[in-house]
Amino acid sequence: MQKVHKFRFSVAYADTDAGGIMYHGRYIEIAERARMAWLGKDAMPIDDDVGLVVRDLHMRYMRPLFLTDEFIVETRVTAVGAASISIEQKFVKNGEVCGILTGTAAYLNSVGRPVRLPDNLAKVLANETN
Amino acid sequence: MQKVHKFRFSVAYADTDAGGIMYHGRYIEIAERARMAWLGKDAMPIDDDVGLVVRDLHMRYMRPLFLTDEFIVETRVTAVGAASISIEQKFVKNGEVCGILTGTAAYLNSVGRPVRLPDNLAKVLANETN
Amino acid sequence: MQKVHKFRFSVAYADTDAGGIMYHGRYIEIAERARMAWLGKDAMPIDDDVGLVVRDLHMRYMRPLFLTDEFIVETRVTAVGAASISIEQKFVKNGEVCGILTGTAAYLNSVGRPVRLPDNLAKVLANETN
Amino acid sequence: MQKVHKFRFSVAYADTDAGGIMYHGRYIEIAERARMAWLGKDAMPIDDDVGLVVRDLHMRYMRPLFLTDEFIVETRVTAVGAASISIEQKFVKNGEVCGILTGTAAYLNSVGRPVRLPDNLAKVLANETN
Repeated sequence: MQKVHKFRFSVAYADTDAGGIMYHGRYIEIAERARMAWLGKDAMPIDDDVGLVVRDLHMRYMRPLFLTDEFIVETRVTAVGAASISIEQKFVKNGEVCGILTGTAAYLNSVGRPVRLPDNLAKVLANETN
Repeated sequence: MQKVHKFRFSVAYADTDAGGIMYHGRYIEIAERARMAWLGKDAMPIDDDVGLVVRDLHMRYMRPLFLTDEFIVETRVTAVGAASISIEQKFVKNGEVCGILTGTAAYLNSVGRPVRLPDNLAKVLANETN
Repeated sequence: MQKVHKFRFSVAYADTDAGGIMYHGRYIEIAERARMAWLGKDAMPIDDDVGLVVRDLHMRYMRPLFLTDEFIVETRVTAVGAASISIEQKFVKNGEVCGILTGTAAYLNSVGRPVRLPDNLAKVLANETN
Repeated sequence: MQKVHKFRFSVAYADTDAGGIMYHGRYIEIAERARMAWLGKDAMPIDDDVGLVVRDLHMRYMRPLFLTDEFIVETRVTAVGAASISIEQKFVKNGEVCGILTGTAAYLNSVGRPVRLPDNLAKVLANETN
């Protein structure tokens, strides 16, 4: 069973655009913020590695979010490979899903080559999908 | 045949992250900037409409971009519907594709309902795929 | 006596730059986020007004913040005028001040002219410096 | 006499907020972009240094900028010290100054201590105020 990590956030002016809604690019940033709030130092690169790098992401926008709206980002790990991790993140306001991000990240070493996840990170992630 | 719109940009500190590369969320913003440089006022909402809103996007990251790198965003319209538009945008550095964004946007009226593209915008877009 | 509003935040990749520290421009955004968390809907424009707009800001950077650092933004109102408000915001990590923002905002009507603060907002702010 | 470096930019959705104008925090980013366009690789840190870091900035907002507006950032060096540099940057639209940023940056070594500007950077800057 997948664990769900909830991250609460509010829409500030910085997140909005002249259309009066949350800027579509901001979802990507806030999703990353939610992943960091969940993994924290466990997600940081070791040695001189570049670290976790997003390879692929898909974002579906279903309902707009507005200035001062409060919402929750629900993060689930959907797959863990030797050198990569796949996640799904839902933006939920008052129980309604406003957007869904799915993505895959790889762990890169100091010269930008994909390598096995550091032990500590692998251990943390292994715990997520049991 | 599809027209290609080229938009030149450089990586500033604002675009980078502590991994030493362009932040993955920034591609989404710069892609929007390239679309605005191409469409300009033709993309702006009329009356009190919300305007063009991204419904769906997919971003594939292939090669990292670094501080001070110069690159070109190549934008192509891949489909124009009555109320929506699909595009493909390639991030190209020295002839190598570093990332590809594909996405669909809908035009929303003042209450957030998808409606037909304004005549002017539809006319501009019709010209893109002939 | 001035009330102090505390807002807790963490440094994500989105906030950092290739220098390995929090990007200097991000402090401005996070300060705004802290003000929104404090004022919320009370800060929103009424009718078709543009609303509160920053006229002037000064930011002093004293100690860098790093990826995954947790810090608190402490917000104080330092002056309330008929049409403007001055604030001070400190970025504090482990009791040490890392940066200080001071700024003034005016309230603009629908044509961008400074006008008296809406009653509700004025009332909320009057309470801050007693 | 001071040299003036001009950087042309346009307001995209990414730069705006729900007030319908360019977000106040974006000026700081775009100012940095203008400095990078001017200095480019000459501004990059050498060895493992952190590099140029903003210590202090003041931003005055005089006239709003709107979606699709074109403007120029005019950058001047106002002082060059052994380990720091002061600049002034004006945001100009159709000959009217919309905002002015003044700021000071220091050059930090790998442990975050201010040190003399690298020779190459010092040489480039010395040329600016003659």
